[in-house]
Amino acid sequence: MKPVDGRLHHMTSSGTRVAIIGTGLIGGSLLRALATTGLPVSGYDADPATRAQVRRAGHEEPGHSAVSRSAALPQAPGQPRWHIADSLPGAVRDFGADLVVLAVPLPALPAVLDELDAIGYQGLLTDVTSVKGPVATLVARHPALRYVGGHPMAGREHAGFEASDPELFSGRPWALCLEPDTPLEEWLALADLLTTIGARVVPTTATAHDAAVARISHVPHLLATALARASTDPLAAGLAAGSFRDGTRVAASPPALVTAMCSGNAAAVREALDALLDDLRTARELLESPEEFTRWLEPGYAMRRSWPSQPGPESTLPATRTELLALGQAGGWITKVAADRRAVTAQRPAA
Amino acid sequence: MKPVDGRLHHMTSSGTRVAIIGTGLIGGSLLRALATTGLPVSGYDADPATRAQVRRAGHEEPGHSAVSRSAALPQAPGQPRWHIADSLPGAVRDFGADLVVLAVPLPALPAVLDELDAIGYQGLLTDVTSVKGPVATLVARHPALRYVGGHPMAGREHAGFEASDPELFSGRPWALCLEPDTPLEEWLALADLLTTIGARVVPTTATAHDAAVARISHVPHLLATALARASTDPLAAGLAAGSFRDGTRVAASPPALVTAMCSGNAAAVREALDALLDDLRTARELLESPEEFTRWLEPGYAMRRSWPSQPGPESTLPATRTELLALGQAGGWITKVAADRRAVTAQRPAA
Repeated sequence: MKPVDGRLHHMTSSGTRVAIIGTGLIGGSLLRALATTGLPVSGYDADPATRAQVRRAGHEEPGHSAVSRSAALPQAPGQPRWHIADSLPGAVRDFGADLVVLAVPLPALPAVLDELDAIGYQGLLTDVTSVKGPVATLVARHPALRYVGGHPMAGREHAGFEASDPELFSGRPWALCLEPDTPLEEWLALADLLTTIGARVVPTTATAHDAAVARISHVPHLLATALARASTDPLAAGLAAGSFRDGTRVAASPPALVTAMCSGNAAAVREALDALLDDLRTARELLESPEEFTRWLEPGYAMRRSWPSQPGPESTLPATRTELLALGQAGGWITKVAADRRAVTAQRPAA
Repeated sequence: MKPVDGRLHHMTSSGTRVAIIGTGLIGGSLLRALATTGLPVSGYDADPATRAQVRRAGHEEPGHSAVSRSAALPQAPGQPRWHIADSLPGAVRDFGADLVVLAVPLPALPAVLDELDAIGYQGLLTDVTSVKGPVATLVARHPALRYVGGHPMAGREHAGFEASDPELFSGRPWALCLEPDTPLEEWLALADLLTTIGARVVPTTATAHDAAVARISHVPHLLATALARASTDPLAAGLAAGSFRDGTRVAASPPALVTAMCSGNAAAVREALDALLDDLRTARELLESPEEFTRWLEPGYAMRRSWPSQPGPESTLPATRTELLALGQAGGWITKVAADRRAVTAQRPAA
């Protein structure tokens, strides 16, 4: 990664011009959320129909203009809410973006990174991809780009801009990778921006993130699909009720997205799946020993009854790598970054 | 099973006196649903605190009296909505019940069946237990009892009378076992009663039911618990979002109830779990072959996108065993039983 330059050193939420590449569910929701805060924001999507749809929505949504740098200026009549360009250079270079958010599926990333390199983009780069290790490896091939990996934990089973929601990230965790070589100032600038749209910024590393999401998201997608695959006969489908409905909900996610997620995190998914299959084989052997089977159920029952944790009291932490990563590991998150970027307001789950 | 006697031959919804043994979530909801239709209904629960709670609720809920046989008679002032007895004989024999519904957990059934035998109960018996083969085996030891096995597919993760709801069964499947030796007239009388509280009565057999619920309910409970057991570390629990929330919801079910369900259906659960583990091992091997992995996802995606089916047009079927069982196997259900019990109104899922 390049050393931090002066302009980005002083990047603040209010001075940032954000370009969002990919305006599906996540990119589109981020576009709408940032526009609500009054930031100038541009977007580009490879699909012309999506661009037309998002452009139309920008004219229809009330609020601030994409061209204005000030949150205080109301939208002028006829001014769109955001700028939709017909090319990536249009959304990034011509718009003057100093933050680019990649919200495209993992397989589309290499071509987008090449294009950013080709136009000489030197600003900050982040992404919303559901795996962080493989993206970091891809980005490392482009030393001119300064990258902080991110992942909002706010998927839905419906994809596309039509499912987008400016409130999608409000109160939801947003993992933000703080690696040994991540410039802390840029990490804090991005954290600051994300807290303005209500996200709970969780400091973590790519490795810890990928292992966690394998367990809490990717393996759950595999299980949901396996359950649905096992219940195609009409009697079973007709009797199926609540436990089936919830246990299979994410099987309705577009297969291509699930493949990008799971195949992109194959090593961690295999490890998490193997551990889960072992645990299920244990349960299988206990089926006819009711007392032992109940003891197997109890830790899952206790975990789920106390999840999600209520937020504990807020505290102020020095904005150091050690303190931030310890906060994330303890299940905590950042709600605010101090103006001088030397401290953060942190919350931990209630004990 | 005893041959059908004259009184029950002519049992109709409006003439039935129902005793419900066990007034937790399911029994309590049934008590409230039947009371709403104006039927005289009694209840008994082994727990004195539950009895007191249900008795209080019967005085507080507006509606018809438990003592009246006619739905047209409004509740007299001070008359309880239902009769809560302090003993099983009080709820069954003293109340003059001609239908007993067992809504106790599987492990409590043998003692209740002994008690029904001891008081010489000769009316119709049904149950709401989530496994049907083991209950049929238990009931077969009591030849004086005439039994039709049932199972409403309407669980919730919260248990107890406080979670009960008179609308719990409305529009939900209620499996009703039609075995070679089940008297068809009694089966139809019970189906008639259940359609009056809005249930979709699904004709099936104990064997077909138990195999289906292993796949759509019991294995999903195991998977939910395994997922929750795997995500107790604070970072994972803190990042967990929608796929985890839904995939683990039923892990919050009381462990004793889940044990009764799964251990009570151990053979079918093992078979369904083994098939699912095999399928997950297949998925594991495809993780790094994105195209094949996507093909593995697709049948689950298609199934879940089209579930639940919309009801197709209603049709009238002759009320024969063959027609009824074929209806259930095709994913269909009964919405009405003709007054002469020779035909039913049936619905199938839309194609």
